[in-house]
Amino acid sequence: MTFNAKLTSAWQNSGSQLMVGLDPDPARFPAELQGRNDAIYEFCREIVDATAPYVCGFKPQIAYFSAHRAEDQLEALCQYIRERYADLPLVLDAKRGDIGSTAEQYAQEAYERYGADAVTVNPYMGYDSVAPYLEWKDRGVIVLCRTSNPGGSDLQFVEDRDGTPLYLRVASLVAEQWDRNGGQCGLVVGATFPQEIAKVRARVGDMPLLIPGIGAQGGSITETVRAGRNSRATGMMINSSRAVLYADNGEGWCAAAARVARETRDAINAVE
Amino acid sequence: MTFNAKLTSAWQNSGSQLMVGLDPDPARFPAELQGRNDAIYEFCREIVDATAPYVCGFKPQIAYFSAHRAEDQLEALCQYIRERYADLPLVLDAKRGDIGSTAEQYAQEAYERYGADAVTVNPYMGYDSVAPYLEWKDRGVIVLCRTSNPGGSDLQFVEDRDGTPLYLRVASLVAEQWDRNGGQCGLVVGATFPQEIAKVRARVGDMPLLIPGIGAQGGSITETVRAGRNSRATGMMINSSRAVLYADNGEGWCAAAARVARETRDAINAVE
Repeated sequence: MTFNAKLTSAWQNSGSQLMVGLDPDPARFPAELQGRNDAIYEFCREIVDATAPYVCGFKPQIAYFSAHRAEDQLEALCQYIRERYADLPLVLDAKRGDIGSTAEQYAQEAYERYGADAVTVNPYMGYDSVAPYLEWKDRGVIVLCRTSNPGGSDLQFVEDRDGTPLYLRVASLVAEQWDRNGGQCGLVVGATFPQEIAKVRARVGDMPLLIPGIGAQGGSITETVRAGRNSRATGMMINSSRAVLYADNGEGWCAAAARVARETRDAINAVE
Repeated sequence: MTFNAKLTSAWQNSGSQLMVGLDPDPARFPAELQGRNDAIYEFCREIVDATAPYVCGFKPQIAYFSAHRAEDQLEALCQYIRERYADLPLVLDAKRGDIGSTAEQYAQEAYERYGADAVTVNPYMGYDSVAPYLEWKDRGVIVLCRTSNPGGSDLQFVEDRDGTPLYLRVASLVAEQWDRNGGQCGLVVGATFPQEIAKVRARVGDMPLLIPGIGAQGGSITETVRAGRNSRATGMMINSSRAVLYADNGEGWCAAAARVARETRDAINAVE
């Protein structure tokens, strides 16, 4: 089964296009976890259990583990998600960008060490930075296309001689050339630019889009969904991290995370 | 002291512009290290000791450690280099590409956990993906500009309306805008395109260039040096990894690595 097939099943079975991003920041953990050696793992595991009924998948961001020497906790978390929620895609947000034998090492890290179903990848080094990942036929590669930060325009909005901005070139390259085996690639497109999500969607057919930028970052759910859904009324992994993880840091933090996840899923599904 | 000042001192004191890249591949280790739990660390440490007299710095590539769950060995290696060869810049090759609080986590990983003097970074997400690193005033950021792989042209060679290819826009952005404090930024430019190295050099003054692609990858040392040196006849970290590390895998592997490093340094210095 390809990554896209697993994701499509998850959309259908969960009835959700919400993806919860796991960006654990120990300074924001509830008091009951402060000072514990496994606080990062425990925090994420509780969030996963609380929000799993409302999501189409989980997306741990590796920097939040690496900065704290917590690769072992990321391994344990990924294993937990794979075993307990085997039908929910696990996307490792690592934004790797390298080629050849080095990219193979990164693929091995993402797919074998952490057992991720997909990994985010940076396109700046071209097709060579995606090709090594495609050797894992049942796994996915989600390529940065249009990011939701102010500086995202520095390069992504540069227009070529025909007036095509770089991010649309990336969208076309991935859809028409890089996803050689089919069903392995997706794109990252930020929610703060719904018009640009629509332009990407128009170029890539039903390809999955990973969309950060709603919630704490201010993107509109309604505009995002109208711009990003595909011909089957799905096609999106709409990511929310901080708004879910830190909905409350008192005793009711798990319930608060579950509530925000459920409300976000419902808001996504309510868009006509 | 800024990263660039440390690097300039290293060029002067070592009389070398060779940087040895530490890309440890256990399958290619000499027999005496096979099967050891600390083989990655020991291999790199021996290479460092053997080649230190001939280099201006070392560049561990993090994927080769992460894929083998060897972050602890990378930590130990970086500590060894910092303590034993404090004057030689330590560049962590991680090609990170993220923004905001996530980029801060990556900076913390590179500069604090591993104690690197500089880290390689991908420019696709724009200035926001460099800014968080600049807060560490005594450390450096080396931005991908023109890479030496075939697919490097997919994006880097796209010309804007004025005919400027993307990699030259990156060079100008970094030199004129992103290196706000001065002395913190450098660029990665592959050795297989000496004409393009010359174009980058013409745009960025004396900014340091990290140049992979000689040796196993086929770039010409003579053409690289002529294209890349700055107004003070230095300015380059010319990287060699596999040609040095795997010069021999018999009993004389350390001596062979030292010999290749010395010959490469001499070949760089012999260019008129």
